[in-house]
Amino acid sequence: MTELVLPSDANQLGNILGGRVMHWVDLAAAIAAARHAGRVAVTASMDRLDFLLPVKVGQVVSLVAEVNWAGRTSMEVGVEVYREELGASERELTSRAYLTFVAIDADGRPVPVPPLLLTRSEEVARFHAAEARRQARLAHRARMREEL
Amino acid sequence: MTELVLPSDANQLGNILGGRVMHWVDLAAAIAAARHAGRVAVTASMDRLDFLLPVKVGQVVSLVAEVNWAGRTSMEVGVEVYREELGASERELTSRAYLTFVAIDADGRPVPVPPLLLTRSEEVARFHAAEARRQARLAHRARMREEL
Amino acid sequence: MTELVLPSDANQLGNILGGRVMHWVDLAAAIAAARHAGRVAVTASMDRLDFLLPVKVGQVVSLVAEVNWAGRTSMEVGVEVYREELGASERELTSRAYLTFVAIDADGRPVPVPPLLLTRSEEVARFHAAEARRQARLAHRARMREEL
Amino acid sequence: MTELVLPSDANQLGNILGGRVMHWVDLAAAIAAARHAGRVAVTASMDRLDFLLPVKVGQVVSLVAEVNWAGRTSMEVGVEVYREELGASERELTSRAYLTFVAIDADGRPVPVPPLLLTRSEEVARFHAAEARRQARLAHRARMREEL
Amino acid sequence: MTELVLPSDANQLGNILGGRVMHWVDLAAAIAAARHAGRVAVTASMDRLDFLLPVKVGQVVSLVAEVNWAGRTSMEVGVEVYREELGASERELTSRAYLTFVAIDADGRPVPVPPLLLTRSEEVARFHAAEARRQARLAHRARMREEL
Amino acid sequence: MTELVLPSDANQLGNILGGRVMHWVDLAAAIAAARHAGRVAVTASMDRLDFLLPVKVGQVVSLVAEVNWAGRTSMEVGVEVYREELGASERELTSRAYLTFVAIDADGRPVPVPPLLLTRSEEVARFHAAEARRQARLAHRARMREEL
Repeated sequence: MTELVLPSDANQLGNILGGRVMHWVDLAAAIAAARHAGRVAVTASMDRLDFLLPVKVGQVVSLVAEVNWAGRTSMEVGVEVYREELGASERELTSRAYLTFVAIDADGRPVPVPPLLLTRSEEVARFHAAEARRQARLAHRARMREEL
Repeated sequence: MTELVLPSDANQLGNILGGRVMHWVDLAAAIAAARHAGRVAVTASMDRLDFLLPVKVGQVVSLVAEVNWAGRTSMEVGVEVYREELGASERELTSRAYLTFVAIDADGRPVPVPPLLLTRSEEVARFHAAEARRQARLAHRARMREEL
Repeated sequence: MTELVLPSDANQLGNILGGRVMHWVDLAAAIAAARHAGRVAVTASMDRLDFLLPVKVGQVVSLVAEVNWAGRTSMEVGVEVYREELGASERELTSRAYLTFVAIDADGRPVPVPPLLLTRSEEVARFHAAEARRQARLAHRARMREEL
Repeated sequence: MTELVLPSDANQLGNILGGRVMHWVDLAAAIAAARHAGRVAVTASMDRLDFLLPVKVGQVVSLVAEVNWAGRTSMEVGVEVYREELGASERELTSRAYLTFVAIDADGRPVPVPPLLLTRSEEVARFHAAEARRQARLAHRARMREEL
Repeated sequence: MTELVLPSDANQLGNILGGRVMHWVDLAAAIAAARHAGRVAVTASMDRLDFLLPVKVGQVVSLVAEVNWAGRTSMEVGVEVYREELGASERELTSRAYLTFVAIDADGRPVPVPPLLLTRSEEVARFHAAEARRQARLAHRARMREEL
Repeated sequence: MTELVLPSDANQLGNILGGRVMHWVDLAAAIAAARHAGRVAVTASMDRLDFLLPVKVGQVVSLVAEVNWAGRTSMEVGVEVYREELGASERELTSRAYLTFVAIDADGRPVPVPPLLLTRSEEVARFHAAEARRQARLAHRARMREEL
């Protein structure tokens, strides 16, 4: 996914709105999740998101999303966000995010998703890292539900 | 900040897009930060964001944002997101998020922000909790920069 | 309801578009009406709307909406619009509007709304003022239908 | 100005949002005022706006705007809003609105506008009716400023 | 159809986005086609579109759309796009486009449209020119399907 | 560039608006042109655009854009548009478009762009095909200017 940063994406100083990037991150991840599941998937959570570099109007933002992990009805998607100055030969990583999605049917009920096929060792490593993040998420969610 | 969930905020099943909520969270927090700083502030990070309850077209989403912590040029803002069914007497917490913002001048350089006045014990507790989250964020950011 | 005025809300001189404010006024009032009715409500009219102060990109607009009057299927909502300069300690009233809404069912037919509970003398005064505006509106609408 | 009512203009029952119509009314009037003034004009007020007929997704809305009156720096524009069912041979008037605009320079200061040339008796009648509305507006604005 | 070019329609130099004009061209043509068909019509193709003159923020764009040709279920619509400088006495043609539309029923199947009534010699000439473009289009589409 | 088709991109039957696809095509091409030129580029023309397959809400649209030809200040970009059904293993070509862009400086004047490096025979073939389309475009533009 590639986006040109337009004035309507920015504040009056020409800095991109953080929420616009979040929206793109969510869309890129939703597409990856929906492709894996073969159906609509809704966002369940986003882990920490850092903006390491400022992004300005006229620059290009590109996003790379990949499904790292799939459980019974939920998936973890990793998204990398790059900033690219027009005329520059390289793009720079500005954010990395992990989101979870749940595949749903027409009544909004969770439905099973296919298992993730892991063929390369890199994919296996990513799966295990995602598994660890999942444990942290479940703990956080349980704490949050308790507080309510 | 209060928003009515319209069809243009949702997927084809009528579920709100996660990215739309993130955008509202960022805007609500940006307003709180800009009010405290007395100038434009840009998003530096968002901590974990969970969606505990599904939100559908026709429901009302309300957001409450508050500055928890202020350093030299950066601030932490806490945002709570509530879902409200029309005709229901109560609203339910669906998300809680912590974002950091940096106040900038017209050239995009960080500028000092006023200190946060803490008068109630509750505010002091919030300040200390934010201080702890700040340490975790700095560690995470350092790790992320190293990986690049 | 609170909104940060962004470049996409403004003309090329940085002045907010009147229609953007009207849209926010309508949304804020629609939420108030829908909350009272416990269901969808559609706009039937807006009384005079004045813009007393210019609003520019980078300022904050906040809106306060309240149901003043409820009849069998229609309601009057009052909305106040405030402009706030970042860093200023006070917000200033820039517009005040009165809108009427009708609660409808899934087929678009008007449906009864609950009566308005008036407990404070201030609410009673508001109700009577709204009643007077209602008579003026009915007269205006009758004249307008005749002209067609 | 002609607009096709799309799902993104409507609530979940397919009724157009009142604020969307207001936004179109303001834009149509702003174009008429800017054409007369030969420069940017900002909205100063909108008189009463009634929605006589429901408008649904898939219908066509057309707007006709005309400058009725011009003073030193301000103008009154009348807008008529029509609803058209696809396949119907006639369009029906659903709203009529009067807005005032002020021409401004790059610093936001009011600037003189050309006088309105009245050649037909119909235009003269419209000018006088607008003159009467202007007196009512000035009285209303004075009352509103006093209340603040 | 008349549109005021706003900052949200433009790139950071204030030039209108080509895609925004295309979107307006498509909407204006879709309305003309839907009016002729008396039902929803979807875009099947757009012939060559040239932008002869630059269009900037603050100018007015007006579009004139007319149905040139109608077959069994499809129609050709011609659209002219004009640019108008505020304060200028004339508008200038900047683009001319020909689009084809197909009327569809609720299941998306093509449905017959009424024949086009040609009364003036100018309309007959337009019909024949459209007929010639239609042959070129069919040939192009056949070539394109073969290549796939 | 990858886009999920949302209700706000579609008409009331859930068919994507042609103008929305055109807007995406223009953006994808603008990014490719701006990357090649190292600066802002504006749309000069779009050749014929056909929609071979219907696209519905909930499907995924992906666009592939490539610079085929570069002259002194202008470039031709080819864009392919694919439709992808969630859960399908293949995506299908629905449109192919050729657009021309001109690189401009801050005053809107055309500026030279780097030559295109052609290394593979496929790129050379694309360059020559683009050269032929360029001649057709120049002839069309000359005819159109004469008609004005």
